[in-house]
Amino acid sequence: MEERISLSHGSGGKQTNNLINDLFIKYFNNEIISEMNDSAQISLDGSKRIAVTTDSFVVNPIFFNGGDIGKLAVCGTVNDLAMSGAKPLYLTSAFIIEEGFEIEKLEMIVKSMADAAEEAKIQIVAGDTKVVEKGGVDGVFINTSGIGTIYENTNIKAYNAMAGDVVIVNGTLGDHGMTIMCQRSGIDIEGELKSDCAPLNSLVDSMLEVCSDIHVLRDATRGGVAAVLNEIAEMSKVSIELDESSIPISEEVKGSCELLGLDPLYIANEGKLCCFVSEAYANQVLEAMKKHSLGANAAIIGRVIEQVPQKVYLKTIIGGKRIVDMPSGQQLPRIC
Amino acid sequence: MEERISLSHGSGGKQTNNLINDLFIKYFNNEIISEMNDSAQISLDGSKRIAVTTDSFVVNPIFFNGGDIGKLAVCGTVNDLAMSGAKPLYLTSAFIIEEGFEIEKLEMIVKSMADAAEEAKIQIVAGDTKVVEKGGVDGVFINTSGIGTIYENTNIKAYNAMAGDVVIVNGTLGDHGMTIMCQRSGIDIEGELKSDCAPLNSLVDSMLEVCSDIHVLRDATRGGVAAVLNEIAEMSKVSIELDESSIPISEEVKGSCELLGLDPLYIANEGKLCCFVSEAYANQVLEAMKKHSLGANAAIIGRVIEQVPQKVYLKTIIGGKRIVDMPSGQQLPRIC
Repeated sequence: MEERISLSHGSGGKQTNNLINDLFIKYFNNEIISEMNDSAQISLDGSKRIAVTTDSFVVNPIFFNGGDIGKLAVCGTVNDLAMSGAKPLYLTSAFIIEEGFEIEKLEMIVKSMADAAEEAKIQIVAGDTKVVEKGGVDGVFINTSGIGTIYENTNIKAYNAMAGDVVIVNGTLGDHGMTIMCQRSGIDIEGELKSDCAPLNSLVDSMLEVCSDIHVLRDATRGGVAAVLNEIAEMSKVSIELDESSIPISEEVKGSCELLGLDPLYIANEGKLCCFVSEAYANQVLEAMKKHSLGANAAIIGRVIEQVPQKVYLKTIIGGKRIVDMPSGQQLPRIC
Repeated sequence: MEERISLSHGSGGKQTNNLINDLFIKYFNNEIISEMNDSAQISLDGSKRIAVTTDSFVVNPIFFNGGDIGKLAVCGTVNDLAMSGAKPLYLTSAFIIEEGFEIEKLEMIVKSMADAAEEAKIQIVAGDTKVVEKGGVDGVFINTSGIGTIYENTNIKAYNAMAGDVVIVNGTLGDHGMTIMCQRSGIDIEGELKSDCAPLNSLVDSMLEVCSDIHVLRDATRGGVAAVLNEIAEMSKVSIELDESSIPISEEVKGSCELLGLDPLYIANEGKLCCFVSEAYANQVLEAMKKHSLGANAAIIGRVIEQVPQKVYLKTIIGGKRIVDMPSGQQLPRIC
């Protein structure tokens, strides 16, 4: 291990995984945390299946086109629960605020948390407020933790992808990350970049209604679709082939990515999920997604293939094939 | 409301309560959060009584005599659950780490969390790691959220104190706060100041074993016993009279408080609770506490009295009587 924490330890790629395995999993050693899903599955009375998850939000800027740190904090945790096939029910919220922070801004953040909670149909039931001296924290950081009940007859896990599965996403990729990146660096893109930040639980409900046998669900946050698919490929011990021509990306994201030399597959989303389902159900699920307001641009972007070494591959538009690696090194910090 | 957040909004006194009521409770408006107990009581299947709570820890220094931020983060949340009469079961932990933080120190913190989790017999089941650029956060902040099941036949709430109750504490007051304060300001006290940071769930178990009819339990953290008793007096609509001569305070805390002109009743504890129980059970509960390693110095320090206005009063050693007000203004920041 390195001697000091670097930004890459927080970017959701290889170094984050190493830190989690070498430190947190090693010491907190128990069966539940070792599963490393978006949320942990606990039992309170031996029978009930309950999902819990936690996330801290340090996004900079605090307010961005399409949302703010408050909306993000609610949606992020709601989505982690939804990705485990759980119905999100309750959230806790804990604020760490810098001395001197404008109360008017804090009120805007709290209000947008309340709005997102209402949209996601969850309740925020407990909270905590800490204030640190000026310079001790940059503005405001929010932690949310969430609890939900896992739907019966579902078994959605990152290690359940299998040969014959197709990969579906619910819309354009890279919107959140590019919005933050361009806003932070002052780059003015033609058209409108807007974060996709949204609670995905109602979309997942519509998908499960037509097919309870979804194998994997993951929201493609830090590290983008590339990180998420690499994790799934590794945990499920499969290869995944993406078809570049079918990956939905907005003109604005395409343009800004070209400008900055970035690959949209590595850019964070906050309202996009990857779904693995067997080919037999693919169209039903896709249609259900398209009918939902958060899935209008849903598309099948790839499939699980039998190929060694087990990697994520991309069939490019010009007919080539390349490996989509796990992101490594420093991505943009404070994207969420 | 003021225009900007000040340190006093985070010190657990009047301004913290105003912020919570005027902002968080107002917008997150639901019956559960409005109860304002140490943990929220939720239901997942209509019958089971489940407690959830969240706390962020920003203590400075990160390592102190008697513990570190990791031990504090586990004990704090375990204690919030225990104070609701819940058996703590699962914790989540979320780290916000400053770029450049030594991994060796992080490992010490994680290890002490694991040790505290083992002592408290809980599992840490989910986590999150964020890294922010140098200067974006001071060292490391940790959030823990916790879940537990509320013991049957108990009804422990801050609004349940009633005439005839006595107030018991499980030992000396002010140890944690004075340890942090003296360590931070470089004051060298004769004797040894040591934080009382400890998980109190097993102590509460022994108390409930001899008396399930405990009315109120609160751990006396930010704002000390003064803040906690004022909250209880207000929520239960009663007066409380403390007997100064019976309040256990160590020589070291007494000495350092005199030196700094502080009142130990206002100093934070991290392993001390206030218990309200009717006089009939007081001795049984006290004896059970004294038998426990975390209650050797337990003492009855006061009682609920019928007096208006409803306040917390102190019968002083020299025979006077004064009001112990809710702490107001800036206490020492980053005590937990």
